[in-house]
Amino acid sequence: MSKLKIFAIVFTAVIGLTSAANAATIILASDDFVGISFWLISMGTLAATAFFFLERGSVATNWKPSVTVAGLITGIAFVHYMYMKNIWIETGDMPIVYRYIDWIITMPLIMLEFYLLPAAVRKVSFNIFWRILAGSLVMVVGGFLGEMNYINTFLGFVIAMGGWIYILYEIYSGEIGTIVAKSGNKALVNSYSAMRIIVTIGWAIYPLGYVFGYLTGDVESNSINIVYNLVDFINKIAFGLIIYACAVSNTGSRARY
Amino acid sequence: MSKLKIFAIVFTAVIGLTSAANAATIILASDDFVGISFWLISMGTLAATAFFFLERGSVATNWKPSVTVAGLITGIAFVHYMYMKNIWIETGDMPIVYRYIDWIITMPLIMLEFYLLPAAVRKVSFNIFWRILAGSLVMVVGGFLGEMNYINTFLGFVIAMGGWIYILYEIYSGEIGTIVAKSGNKALVNSYSAMRIIVTIGWAIYPLGYVFGYLTGDVESNSINIVYNLVDFINKIAFGLIIYACAVSNTGSRARY
Amino acid sequence: MSKLKIFAIVFTAVIGLTSAANAATIILASDDFVGISFWLISMGTLAATAFFFLERGSVATNWKPSVTVAGLITGIAFVHYMYMKNIWIETGDMPIVYRYIDWIITMPLIMLEFYLLPAAVRKVSFNIFWRILAGSLVMVVGGFLGEMNYINTFLGFVIAMGGWIYILYEIYSGEIGTIVAKSGNKALVNSYSAMRIIVTIGWAIYPLGYVFGYLTGDVESNSINIVYNLVDFINKIAFGLIIYACAVSNTGSRARY
Amino acid sequence: MSKLKIFAIVFTAVIGLTSAANAATIILASDDFVGISFWLISMGTLAATAFFFLERGSVATNWKPSVTVAGLITGIAFVHYMYMKNIWIETGDMPIVYRYIDWIITMPLIMLEFYLLPAAVRKVSFNIFWRILAGSLVMVVGGFLGEMNYINTFLGFVIAMGGWIYILYEIYSGEIGTIVAKSGNKALVNSYSAMRIIVTIGWAIYPLGYVFGYLTGDVESNSINIVYNLVDFINKIAFGLIIYACAVSNTGSRARY
Amino acid sequence: MSKLKIFAIVFTAVIGLTSAANAATIILASDDFVGISFWLISMGTLAATAFFFLERGSVATNWKPSVTVAGLITGIAFVHYMYMKNIWIETGDMPIVYRYIDWIITMPLIMLEFYLLPAAVRKVSFNIFWRILAGSLVMVVGGFLGEMNYINTFLGFVIAMGGWIYILYEIYSGEIGTIVAKSGNKALVNSYSAMRIIVTIGWAIYPLGYVFGYLTGDVESNSINIVYNLVDFINKIAFGLIIYACAVSNTGSRARY
Repeated sequence: MSKLKIFAIVFTAVIGLTSAANAATIILASDDFVGISFWLISMGTLAATAFFFLERGSVATNWKPSVTVAGLITGIAFVHYMYMKNIWIETGDMPIVYRYIDWIITMPLIMLEFYLLPAAVRKVSFNIFWRILAGSLVMVVGGFLGEMNYINTFLGFVIAMGGWIYILYEIYSGEIGTIVAKSGNKALVNSYSAMRIIVTIGWAIYPLGYVFGYLTGDVESNSINIVYNLVDFINKIAFGLIIYACAVSNTGSRARY
Repeated sequence: MSKLKIFAIVFTAVIGLTSAANAATIILASDDFVGISFWLISMGTLAATAFFFLERGSVATNWKPSVTVAGLITGIAFVHYMYMKNIWIETGDMPIVYRYIDWIITMPLIMLEFYLLPAAVRKVSFNIFWRILAGSLVMVVGGFLGEMNYINTFLGFVIAMGGWIYILYEIYSGEIGTIVAKSGNKALVNSYSAMRIIVTIGWAIYPLGYVFGYLTGDVESNSINIVYNLVDFINKIAFGLIIYACAVSNTGSRARY
Repeated sequence: MSKLKIFAIVFTAVIGLTSAANAATIILASDDFVGISFWLISMGTLAATAFFFLERGSVATNWKPSVTVAGLITGIAFVHYMYMKNIWIETGDMPIVYRYIDWIITMPLIMLEFYLLPAAVRKVSFNIFWRILAGSLVMVVGGFLGEMNYINTFLGFVIAMGGWIYILYEIYSGEIGTIVAKSGNKALVNSYSAMRIIVTIGWAIYPLGYVFGYLTGDVESNSINIVYNLVDFINKIAFGLIIYACAVSNTGSRARY
Repeated sequence: MSKLKIFAIVFTAVIGLTSAANAATIILASDDFVGISFWLISMGTLAATAFFFLERGSVATNWKPSVTVAGLITGIAFVHYMYMKNIWIETGDMPIVYRYIDWIITMPLIMLEFYLLPAAVRKVSFNIFWRILAGSLVMVVGGFLGEMNYINTFLGFVIAMGGWIYILYEIYSGEIGTIVAKSGNKALVNSYSAMRIIVTIGWAIYPLGYVFGYLTGDVESNSINIVYNLVDFINKIAFGLIIYACAVSNTGSRARY
Repeated sequence: MSKLKIFAIVFTAVIGLTSAANAATIILASDDFVGISFWLISMGTLAATAFFFLERGSVATNWKPSVTVAGLITGIAFVHYMYMKNIWIETGDMPIVYRYIDWIITMPLIMLEFYLLPAAVRKVSFNIFWRILAGSLVMVVGGFLGEMNYINTFLGFVIAMGGWIYILYEIYSGEIGTIVAKSGNKALVNSYSAMRIIVTIGWAIYPLGYVFGYLTGDVESNSINIVYNLVDFINKIAFGLIIYACAVSNTGSRARY
């Protein structure tokens, strides 16, 4: 038997085994807490998406785009979590690349909300969105390049932190923060404040995950995945609910249809 | 006969056998009453979800969230029942972990309804929701940890019962019960009363299932699954229909569009 | 090679095939008239469901639930027919248990229509619904137990006939028939009359199928399936169209939006 | 090595090979023009269905059913074309029975449009629909029985032509043609005229395909499939767009919402 | 055994396996940048489609078709990108034929937007659409025939360029450009200008890809795919957002509902 043949047979056998193993492990094990947390966030984002898309119809017209985007954030997350859940249950591992793909789409949408909310009550320059969009892209791409070792891991960390700090600056002290503070719209001020807290504290999990993921090995991968999954309940679902609450408050004070 | 022919025939025979076996396990057997009950509840929750999401459009705006959430409850249950039905039909067994995942998402939503209904007619503190949410989480997590033997089974049972009793206290004697009684909204009072009865009697099945599931072995797993499936017709579908009926009554007395 | 390895490889090979291999038979044969009738009713119920769910938006609010339920009836039938179509095309046989599952969900919904239609124009006691619901459950469950030989076949037939006759009594001579006759709503009277004819003549196919299915063997299974499929065009799709026509007539004489 | 081992290894190797082959056969070949035309018509009917179902919301209420049915025609065609496309790409052949199933559902719906359009502006007897429905069923069933050799091929052709000619008579010279001509609704007259031209010229392809399909063998099956696919762009999508244009024109001259 | 039987058996065996066993290679590799770009554009077009279809409800009636078509463009692209993404991840290659199929459907829809936008504010001859439609078909079909070597590659390039230049002429200097310039609708003028820039600069990527794809071999296929994917973010998603922005502006200045 040539090496090629042996390779072909072994390779095929491995394929065969993995697809068999697959069939066997498709059922979620009762003690697979990571798998359970993947399942929970999948269903949570699904329910949240359905909620936002349905309830979008009950808010005033100028608030509809905000609620639509809240649903897009959880909807995109739902699609990715269905993939991630299946990969985890089938292989017992989940490549971080899927999370980065999710982040690079959802983080700009989250930034967009910081523009859409004040824009629903008064005129806001679109330039602000471009600036915080840039900040979020720097954050995600920097982290990705560092984690994948395309650049020095510490350098990647610094770049990502830079992007995040810039976003925090813009939404706390920048032009847009001032507009919100002066709007005199109480629901908007409260929601904006809650959204800022999520971006400050909730997002702090990502650099922490980066640090611990870099320092430790496979063993910790379980707990990092659970933390990421649970923190997305805050950063995506609760974030959207805050926006929805703001939209409902502003609809209530006007004409609801 | 050449080797190729022999191979072809044997190969085909194997295919024939496995596909027969396959066909046999995928098709629901006429005497598989558990499978039939899984199928019924799957279709029932699907129909209920479609009904709530469609009819949501016909109730007054402040009642829409209640009907949306009723649809989310049956919708989440539908997704899980599709998984559970397939696992049962394919393997003849159904791990309890799927039910706990379903419960940990749907029970908070059921609790949310106890807040949303009175909130549709008068101002209600959101704190009440946090309290009954906590009660439902204690109930589900306590039961899960006990049933999975992460803690003593009896201890888990006691914790879960504690959560349930706290919920019953809140909805019968707590602040929210008083608000409903004083609202003077007859449809609300009637629906709230019916919802309470479901949480009292319908939910009593879960601790009973826990007790019997703990005392007995595999043999009883069939009947427990049937009971759980049928009781979900009450606890999820009928529960939602009560909310819908309340919303329609309150819409009828105002402006319907 | 250890036994375990051999087992693993064979096991893998077998598993590997279990999901495959029906690709060749999935294609519908040109002379498989039963398969063609399954396909037609699948597509027919799909189109009817889409039609009812879309056109629901064009009828007056108090008629919407009737049209929604008409769509649920065809929608539930669609889901079951997709399963039944695939099982038939793959195996050339179709267990009657799928039809009974479909009936036990759709027949109560059909009964519900007899309540919803008069309830859209005047106050009707909900007790009437419970009575005809009971009649339909007696009919389906009696037939199922008899056909599956859990009880004597003839006894099952008698029970099922009893349920059906009770329904006919209620809708012709009972309280609800009187309400409709006195309503003075011409479209309602006509539609109700047409619905009654369907339940009388269209439903008569089911006991006939039962009798012939019991007396004859496999050979006749083809023709019974074709008859059941074609009769569902009347009992589900045409039934829904009658309700829709009634809703449109009553919308036309009021405010359409 | 035991026979079992050899069998297992060879068997596994075959899996490996065929799965490689698999990837190759599922992918559409760049020179498979028939497959490309199946793909185009699949996507075209999908886009058309989405368009009609969405834009249905923008036309006046009495025109909505016409646009809904236009979407059902393309939607049913889409479902069948997805099946047909996959069968073609996988097997390189496509049984004509799928087209007949599609025709027997969509042609009555196309006939329905000839009733719905004039009925949106004035009272039209429903008997007209039954007559042209009968004509279309005679056309499809006659063609099917002839092509499948259940009756003499030429006889089938004559029956099908009879059905078609009767339809042409009804829509040109019959009662309904007179109603349209007298309606004084310019958009209706123009659209009706365009629809008639499609039924005259576009439908002429089917008997031509029948004649050529009967005279020639496998070689021509490619070109017949391409012609059928492209002609459905006219007979289904363009047909629906004409109806949509008529509905928009009539909405524009009234109240649009 | 006859040859036919053997053939049937072997054929069945081979077919039986075709769908199996790629489970192992489905997972996206972290360094597969082409695969990542396919994933990003898939999710991006999905989110854009959901956004346009939802937000369509918030713009004035005469602008709805424009937003619907924007959603169809991204929706059709989404379906094709899901296919292309899977083919790439599974095989590491992606036949250009899928892009041409996408282009031949989406480019006419993009051209349609150049007609729909001015038509929403004033009467525009439909002939203009036929002319730019013809231009886009010449562009796509010319490129396809050249790239597939059905005609001389350079000739195909010249034909495609001719179609593109004709389109540019029509939208810059032709009748429709004049209508827009004279409309006095600022939002329309700005959006039209932005759409023209996309068709000029964004579309310039396609002939460049053609030139480089023709000059270079497999090695470059990666970078060409990435460029095509990223440029579709501009040509399809950004293009649609410009139309949406124009529709919202025109809705804002009138009645929003």
